[in-house]
Amino acid sequence: MSARLAIGIDIGGTKVAGGVVDGEGSVTHRARRDTPDRSKSPSVVEGTIVEVVTELMQLVGPQRVAAVGIGAAGFVAADRATVVFAPHLSWRHEPLREALQKRVAVPIFVDNDANAAVWAEWKFGAAQGETHVMMITLGTGIGGGILINGQVQRGRFGIAGEFGHMQVVPGGHRCECGNRGCWEQYASGNALVREAHSLFSANSPTASDLLDRVEGVVANLTGPLITQAARDGDPTARELLAEIGNWLGVGIANLAAAFDPGMFVIGGGVSAAGDLLLASARETFKRHLAGRGYRPEARIAAAQLGNDAGLIGAADLARYPAEEQTG
Amino acid sequence: MSARLAIGIDIGGTKVAGGVVDGEGSVTHRARRDTPDRSKSPSVVEGTIVEVVTELMQLVGPQRVAAVGIGAAGFVAADRATVVFAPHLSWRHEPLREALQKRVAVPIFVDNDANAAVWAEWKFGAAQGETHVMMITLGTGIGGGILINGQVQRGRFGIAGEFGHMQVVPGGHRCECGNRGCWEQYASGNALVREAHSLFSANSPTASDLLDRVEGVVANLTGPLITQAARDGDPTARELLAEIGNWLGVGIANLAAAFDPGMFVIGGGVSAAGDLLLASARETFKRHLAGRGYRPEARIAAAQLGNDAGLIGAADLARYPAEEQTG
Repeated sequence: MSARLAIGIDIGGTKVAGGVVDGEGSVTHRARRDTPDRSKSPSVVEGTIVEVVTELMQLVGPQRVAAVGIGAAGFVAADRATVVFAPHLSWRHEPLREALQKRVAVPIFVDNDANAAVWAEWKFGAAQGETHVMMITLGTGIGGGILINGQVQRGRFGIAGEFGHMQVVPGGHRCECGNRGCWEQYASGNALVREAHSLFSANSPTASDLLDRVEGVVANLTGPLITQAARDGDPTARELLAEIGNWLGVGIANLAAAFDPGMFVIGGGVSAAGDLLLASARETFKRHLAGRGYRPEARIAAAQLGNDAGLIGAADLARYPAEEQTG
Repeated sequence: MSARLAIGIDIGGTKVAGGVVDGEGSVTHRARRDTPDRSKSPSVVEGTIVEVVTELMQLVGPQRVAAVGIGAAGFVAADRATVVFAPHLSWRHEPLREALQKRVAVPIFVDNDANAAVWAEWKFGAAQGETHVMMITLGTGIGGGILINGQVQRGRFGIAGEFGHMQVVPGGHRCECGNRGCWEQYASGNALVREAHSLFSANSPTASDLLDRVEGVVANLTGPLITQAARDGDPTARELLAEIGNWLGVGIANLAAAFDPGMFVIGGGVSAAGDLLLASARETFKRHLAGRGYRPEARIAAAQLGNDAGLIGAADLARYPAEEQTG
């Protein structure tokens, strides 16, 4: 295994997180910036990425960095260069690699952030040794990645793994993608907060603990605050997380029917809730799986690399661009 | 390419269809029997399969047959020997290959019928030259197969491609698998007939043409009869097919979000309706696809091998069990 360092960048809706990653998947140095507002032009985000890369290169010495990998929350084309559509950013057919390559001296590869995460979890985390892995990242939305026999499956056009935009409720909640009833409207951080807001709107006394935690300022409620309330024993927060977990289990049963993996790895910010989320997901999964009782069942496990999976995977995929020197 | 002959058997809910298949995918000889009633024991079905195989071997001379491939409408384990669960038959963990191998002298392999079909359509039919193919077979239910870079994707346990049991309507129609709201309850031959029955139950005058075609005997209505009525211009039959096509498009958009294939091949008996079904499927697909307008879109095409896809594919997969001498 190469000991060369690589830089990984994870571009999310709220932050641009970067890290220097060694050959064992450890993050040795870090840098981060807020993601520029989505009203800003793509070049502003690019400038932010270059700032993070430059800072990290100066920390370790530019000559030690072999490659830069970008994990982006969007549809990345099979060329690993172009972001064709980013629902949560302002990118449409954005030639991200080309734009960055003019300002960074080492090779750059762009991947979908969840594709990067499934690679990282398979190589260094929860899915080591598995042959058929599906990664589900629960953040503001849902990201996904598929890995078979050590290969990230990007699909014909590079856009595989957009599980969050599978319709689970006909005529359901509106999604940023323009459709209704997308899975990520029911099993994500946004869904968690939306459901809590509904309770506030209904003046439900069951939400009083949550309301106290934000001192009555509804807009300050976040997913992590709800998770903390659930950990502290608030029954409403626990119910909200279990409901998200329930929808997570429905979607996982759908993916298992279609794809039959050996393991689902659940990552992203919401997965920090652990079994408060995963217990109901597992229960619903077992109840919904077609052929249950007659067939082997996939494991559902929490990610091990936490929020670092995207940047670790992006760095490692850039280090081995052909994915040949792997596991 | 080997010129050796192989026998393919397609076991469906109503018929056991067999054929001798040459190296170019042509069916040179045929035999068929009705599928024994599902109340019968598995050994009765096995006896029927052996009858068909024996008849075909006698037709061409046993020494010319290199292998027998079975395509079964059920969950087939990764060992390509065991049917773990067949929703429409009485098989549960049935060691089909072992049972048949005692009575047939050449190597036998068992595959899911839709896996066999996607192989056949990729090698000899509609999907030649495609790298990422999803096959959807519309019969009484929905079968599915996934092929990436010339390999049938069977999943970790052999059960990938059970698209029909993805839930599309929470709390929807009951399915034979025990769940509610499965896709095959909305986009299949059974769904088509059920919707027509609903019109009869409602005494809808719009169903009078269909009722005339079965001389008032509701139980005689079949999918092919509805398709024929649609071809003859009956607006109700056209609406029913378009509704099935609509649900087909919803599910295809979901699969495209998850797997991003270059092509969907639509086979099975219901696909004989052609554009009466596929036009609305394509329209709904385009309206539901996440990122539409910003991304390349998969083609949706009718299967070319018709009802023979399962047996041709089963035969060819048995001839090349390691899938090495392909393409």
